[in-house]
Amino acid sequence: MKKLLNDPQDAVTETLEGFGLAHADLVQVHLSPHYVSRVGGAVPGKVGLVSGGGSGHEPLHAGFVGVGMLDAAVPGAVFTSPTPDQIAPALLAADSGAGVLAIVKNYTGDVLNFETALELVEAEGSQATSILVNDDVAVEDSLYTAGRRGVAGTVAVEKIAGAAAERGDDLGAVTEIAGKVVANVRSMGVALTACTVPHVGKSSFDLGDDEVEIGIGIHGEPGRHRAPLATADEITQMLLDPVAEDLSLGTGERVLLFVNGMGGTPSSELYVVYRRARTLLEERGVVVSRSLVGNYVTSLEMQGASITVLRLDDELETLWDAPVHTAALRW
Amino acid sequence: MKKLLNDPQDAVTETLEGFGLAHADLVQVHLSPHYVSRVGGAVPGKVGLVSGGGSGHEPLHAGFVGVGMLDAAVPGAVFTSPTPDQIAPALLAADSGAGVLAIVKNYTGDVLNFETALELVEAEGSQATSILVNDDVAVEDSLYTAGRRGVAGTVAVEKIAGAAAERGDDLGAVTEIAGKVVANVRSMGVALTACTVPHVGKSSFDLGDDEVEIGIGIHGEPGRHRAPLATADEITQMLLDPVAEDLSLGTGERVLLFVNGMGGTPSSELYVVYRRARTLLEERGVVVSRSLVGNYVTSLEMQGASITVLRLDDELETLWDAPVHTAALRW
Repeated sequence: MKKLLNDPQDAVTETLEGFGLAHADLVQVHLSPHYVSRVGGAVPGKVGLVSGGGSGHEPLHAGFVGVGMLDAAVPGAVFTSPTPDQIAPALLAADSGAGVLAIVKNYTGDVLNFETALELVEAEGSQATSILVNDDVAVEDSLYTAGRRGVAGTVAVEKIAGAAAERGDDLGAVTEIAGKVVANVRSMGVALTACTVPHVGKSSFDLGDDEVEIGIGIHGEPGRHRAPLATADEITQMLLDPVAEDLSLGTGERVLLFVNGMGGTPSSELYVVYRRARTLLEERGVVVSRSLVGNYVTSLEMQGASITVLRLDDELETLWDAPVHTAALRW
Repeated sequence: MKKLLNDPQDAVTETLEGFGLAHADLVQVHLSPHYVSRVGGAVPGKVGLVSGGGSGHEPLHAGFVGVGMLDAAVPGAVFTSPTPDQIAPALLAADSGAGVLAIVKNYTGDVLNFETALELVEAEGSQATSILVNDDVAVEDSLYTAGRRGVAGTVAVEKIAGAAAERGDDLGAVTEIAGKVVANVRSMGVALTACTVPHVGKSSFDLGDDEVEIGIGIHGEPGRHRAPLATADEITQMLLDPVAEDLSLGTGERVLLFVNGMGGTPSSELYVVYRRARTLLEERGVVVSRSLVGNYVTSLEMQGASITVLRLDDELETLWDAPVHTAALRW
C-alpha cells in the first residue's frame, strides 16, 4: 500500500487536524468524538444542517461545512458509518433552536446510527428530522444497502437545502426542499481501478487490466456488471442513459449536469466525460443550465467517475446559485 | 492504459471542448490553434496575463483563466510545450493595448517558444514581456531544463500578478510583482506512482512497490533521489526542509503554505501532509498566514504531492486575498 499516511489507524484524525488548521476561518474540528462544525457555532434562528458518513469520500462531507451549506459533518472511520455518539453532539452543535435536518446517504449503518442519534437529541429537546439520499440508479439493493445507495447527488441536496436554510426557511420548508432534490436527482458511476482502505492495506476488489465496473458503489461495492474497457464516449453513455431514463427527462427540461471524479482520475478526463454527457442530454432535448465538474464524492484514490443529473426549476436554480463558502465549494 | 478517453490523439481537444462547455460563463475555448481566453476578451486598460505549457497539469493553466488571474492560457500537447503559433494569438487576444505579461515555467521548450511568440506579437505592435518561474528546489538542471524547474509556485505567481493587473497596475508594476513572487516562492514534490501519457500508452517511469521519488518533476522526470516508502511525516520533512532552507525563512516571517496534489492522491492525504508541514514551519518560528490544499498543478493520475512555500508581506497577502473567479480558484 502506497499512501502519504502515518499509522493507518490515525489517518482520519490526522486528516481532520490538517483540515482544521487549513480552514480555521470556516470550520472547527472536534476530535473527541470526531465531528466538524461551522466556525462560530449554530447560527441563531437558522435551521441546522448536518451530514456524515464513512471517511474516504473527501471532500464529502467536511468540505461542505460553511456558509450556505452544512453546519456540521460527522466522519466515521474509512468506509464505516459514524457512531450515534459522534452524530448526536454534531446535531446538538448545529441546533440554534430552529431545529436540525440530517442528510443521510442510504446505507444501512448510516441510517441506523443517524436514527439512534436523532432519538438521543430529541430526548434532549431538539427538533430533529432526517432525509434519505438514494440517487444511485445502478442497483436496487447492495452489499450495504436496502434500496438505492446515496452517492454524488448528496452534494446537490446539501447545497440546495443549505441555501434554503441560509435564507431563513423553517425546518419543514428546508426538509421539503431537500426532498424535492432527492426526488429529482439520479447518479451512476464507473470504476477503472479499485482503492485501498488504509487500515486494510490491500485493494478492496480486483478488476482486470481491460475491464471496468459499471455502476460501482462509492465503497467499491459491485455495480451492475463488468464491461471491457471502452472509450470515454461509450462509458459515458452507459452511465448517462440509465440516469436520464430513470428521471424520465423530457424535451425542454433544464438540468444540472455534475461529473464527479472518484479521486484518482485527472480532471482532464472528467471534462471528456462531461462533453459527451452534455451532447447526449442535448440530443434528448434537455438543456444543461448548470454544471459541476470535479472531485466531490470520492472513493479514496479510485480511478473512475460518476454522472449526476438533477432536474431543475426556477426555485432549485436560485438555491443552487446562492452564495456558498466552504472548503470545497465556493461561489 | 486505463483512462476515460477516446482516441488519445484527441484527448487535449476533447478536454478543452468539455471545459469550454462547462465554464462558458468564464472562458472561450479556441481550437485552431488551441488556446483559452477570458470570456468577453481583453479588458480595456488592463495588462493582459498569459500562461501556458504542456497539458496534463490541469487545472493549470486554463483553470486559472478568469477575473483576477489569467486572460489567456495556452495548452500544448500532453507534457509538450505549446508552439509559437498557438502562443502568439493568445498573447494578442489578451492585449487590450496595455501590454501583456507572459508567465513561463522554466522548461527549455516553453522558454524558446514563448520567446519566439513574444517577438511575433512585438512585431505586430504589442508591448509584451515575460517572467520565468523556477520554484523547484529539487534539482538545478534536469531533463528538460537549464536551471530550476517551474512547478506549483506558478499558481501563486498567476494569482498575485493577476490581482495586480486587475487593480490596474501597469505592465512594469505587474511584472515587478510577479518577479517578487518568483523570488520568494519555492517548491519540492514527491511521487508515489508514475503516470501514463495518453499517446504513449505506458508508464513514464518505473518506481518499485516500496520506493518513492523525492524531488519529482511534474513530467515524471527524475528528482533528487529514490527513497524507501516512509511515513507521511518523514516524507513531508524531506520536502519541507529544503524549501524552508532555500528561502532562508526566519522567525516571525509569514508564509503561504500550499500543499498540491499530483492528481491521483486523495485530498485526505494532502491534509496529513499539510498538518506536518505546518508543524515543521511553526517549529522554525514561521507563521502560516495563508493556506491552499488541493490538486492545482498535477501530473495526470500520478500519486504524490508537492509543498510550496511563499514568503508573504502585506502587499502579497492583499493581492493573494483579492477576489478571483476562475474554474479552479475562486473567492
